[in-house]
Amino acid sequence: MKRAALIAVGSELLRFDRSDTNTVWLTEQLDRLGIETVARLSLPDEPATISRVLSTLVDSSDLVILTGGLGPTEDDRTRDALSLAAGRELQHDPDKERDLRARFAAVEVRWTDRQARQAWRPRGASWIINPAGSADGLILEHGGTTIVALPGVPSEMKPMVSAHLEAWVGTGERQRVLRSVLRTFGRGEAAVEAKIADLYDQPGIEVTVLSSPGEVTIAIQASDTSSEIASKRLEATRAAMLQRLGGGVLVDDERPLAEIVGNLLLEAGQTLAVAESCTGGMLAAEATAVPGSSRWFRGGWVVYSDDLKRDLAGVDPALLERHGAVSEPVGRQLAASVRRRCGADWGVGITGIAGPGGGSAGKPVGLVHVALASATGTEHWRTVRPGGRQGVRRGSVIFALEQLRRALVGRER
Amino acid sequence: MKRAALIAVGSELLRFDRSDTNTVWLTEQLDRLGIETVARLSLPDEPATISRVLSTLVDSSDLVILTGGLGPTEDDRTRDALSLAAGRELQHDPDKERDLRARFAAVEVRWTDRQARQAWRPRGASWIINPAGSADGLILEHGGTTIVALPGVPSEMKPMVSAHLEAWVGTGERQRVLRSVLRTFGRGEAAVEAKIADLYDQPGIEVTVLSSPGEVTIAIQASDTSSEIASKRLEATRAAMLQRLGGGVLVDDERPLAEIVGNLLLEAGQTLAVAESCTGGMLAAEATAVPGSSRWFRGGWVVYSDDLKRDLAGVDPALLERHGAVSEPVGRQLAASVRRRCGADWGVGITGIAGPGGGSAGKPVGLVHVALASATGTEHWRTVRPGGRQGVRRGSVIFALEQLRRALVGRER
Repeated sequence: MKRAALIAVGSELLRFDRSDTNTVWLTEQLDRLGIETVARLSLPDEPATISRVLSTLVDSSDLVILTGGLGPTEDDRTRDALSLAAGRELQHDPDKERDLRARFAAVEVRWTDRQARQAWRPRGASWIINPAGSADGLILEHGGTTIVALPGVPSEMKPMVSAHLEAWVGTGERQRVLRSVLRTFGRGEAAVEAKIADLYDQPGIEVTVLSSPGEVTIAIQASDTSSEIASKRLEATRAAMLQRLGGGVLVDDERPLAEIVGNLLLEAGQTLAVAESCTGGMLAAEATAVPGSSRWFRGGWVVYSDDLKRDLAGVDPALLERHGAVSEPVGRQLAASVRRRCGADWGVGITGIAGPGGGSAGKPVGLVHVALASATGTEHWRTVRPGGRQGVRRGSVIFALEQLRRALVGRER
Repeated sequence: MKRAALIAVGSELLRFDRSDTNTVWLTEQLDRLGIETVARLSLPDEPATISRVLSTLVDSSDLVILTGGLGPTEDDRTRDALSLAAGRELQHDPDKERDLRARFAAVEVRWTDRQARQAWRPRGASWIINPAGSADGLILEHGGTTIVALPGVPSEMKPMVSAHLEAWVGTGERQRVLRSVLRTFGRGEAAVEAKIADLYDQPGIEVTVLSSPGEVTIAIQASDTSSEIASKRLEATRAAMLQRLGGGVLVDDERPLAEIVGNLLLEAGQTLAVAESCTGGMLAAEATAVPGSSRWFRGGWVVYSDDLKRDLAGVDPALLERHGAVSEPVGRQLAASVRRRCGADWGVGITGIAGPGGGSAGKPVGLVHVALASATGTEHWRTVRPGGRQGVRRGSVIFALEQLRRALVGRER
């Protein structure tokens, strides 16, 4: 597999409140072409420093991409660094200056001598046209390594990479990389891993498991020089995982869960209303984050204080007294009541203990009752969510949305 | 000013879905001591690559800190890289091995030969004790540069840095760096900058302006070798900015705005209820994200559909008909109605057009009506928020919280 090193140039990137994102984006683009990233760096606008590090990286990489430092100001020193590292003097390109002057005239920007810097390049380097700005890129071969310098502004850099990366990488034998993403909701990471961990260690397969409150995501990456073999590997691993996980798994669908649920509701011509206690409006906020959600989301209550559960949501005071606010009967009444009162097809009720205070032996922090009311009755789930106050709250929202999703697709609960 | 280079070691850090955070955190710690970070790198677990880059950086830095690669596995190669770069062979430290064996026995972890790797160090290097794990750090002087290697796990690395960084940096002349953060809400970044931009260019002063929906934050950093001078610079610049900005500015208070408002409500023994349309529960979610918010937040309505504004929130149908749902009278009724119905001291009503659809010439996307009801009446603000759907929504939440905050502190509106 070929190796790439990525350098973000710019002293401003080295501040404590900044962090380069270009090299992370580039890693993903290279990954798709089967190129391994072996270094990511942020360096200041110092030609000597850049040049020394660049010379070192050329020895261990087939491709080095620099971003930033190609503009017209004093601080833009990448072309000097390239010249130093490759031992090739900067040469003025009169055609390029003519071209730049024409571009500036077209947008009525005054030409200054500083701009002329952008018409200089190390001997033997070729231009990479910047379709969205004045700082063109540069490419040169040095010691068997391809060095590419690009502008640092993402909106200029990205289209240049998308247009040319395959050419820079070359036409030699290349890894084909295919990827598939499985998403599961409301399960724990350990439980998911226990079912699939023995599938990680296969030739040409790489598995990454990511966990966020309420969701476990499995990314499968299959690679081979033959795309047919990579594809077969991917399909076999994915099929095995889906079989192990036993349903309720989303395949290659990266939309927010609320958007997925919203689309299912739209297709069914149905609507949702919610009554939230411990999640305090997060489920409603998640639903209304989806553009066009007014077609399927009606609204609801945030009943954070217990007397509002009674006065606003009409929960039976005797139930509150007997079972407490965090209980199955209260969850069920919240769901049924908000469904009826808001004239929705589905009603969700959530009541729980987000913590850090308020827990007890019988009702620990993280305990959440979720109920889902429909025309055919009300279902209920008791779950204990991990992850502190925000984890419990966010996990409860995802858990509730997942129950509704399952009800809508009619799969196993 | 002294110069530092920071290297995160670990092939896993170079994946497209990962990004090192240790070097960013270290930059901030160094910044406080007046040390400039001149390189941030992520490198793979390859001793030759690390060693070559390290040798290059030693020439241009007074301090190099590496994190990661000190553990017991095959992949942990940082000590080999140090040995290569400094040209000093690895030596076994029998005292360290005895110490490690004792630590493992104490926590009942089985000792394996792999663990013994952690008792080797380059000749002349000293140990830096890891109080939270088994991988001790290393420090050595090489070519006038201090090289420090630390474990990569943040919870182990950070306390080691906090305990020793001043010592590693040395006792020579040092910049004193002082910082102050001013936060303003509900204003635009351009309007804020127009008032203070001429204060940026002062000796020993650095100003950073960050903008997020509804909030503009100004960080002032003052530095000098004399802490007295740095302090005077900071105070003078801060005083000038506060005078220009004219009130409603938070100084060095980094709590979420909802928490600040919540504490003011607690102090006043008062409560809040909210009725949200375009923000769809986000204000309630923001309030209930604060631990203990049940003492001041009661709850409210999410009235996303217009008929719920009437049926749930009791908005006058004639007003809805005449002015539309996004209007001053509807905002006012939402605020007053939720206050009364939830028995709260303060009621907030928000109705607006979050977009991307739904805008018109008279009511553009971003138009939001915010109302605040109290025992003395209802106030209203009309604002047009930028930033797309999520920016409009989030900006409206902050705008509403800020109006409540100002009402509670009794400052100028």
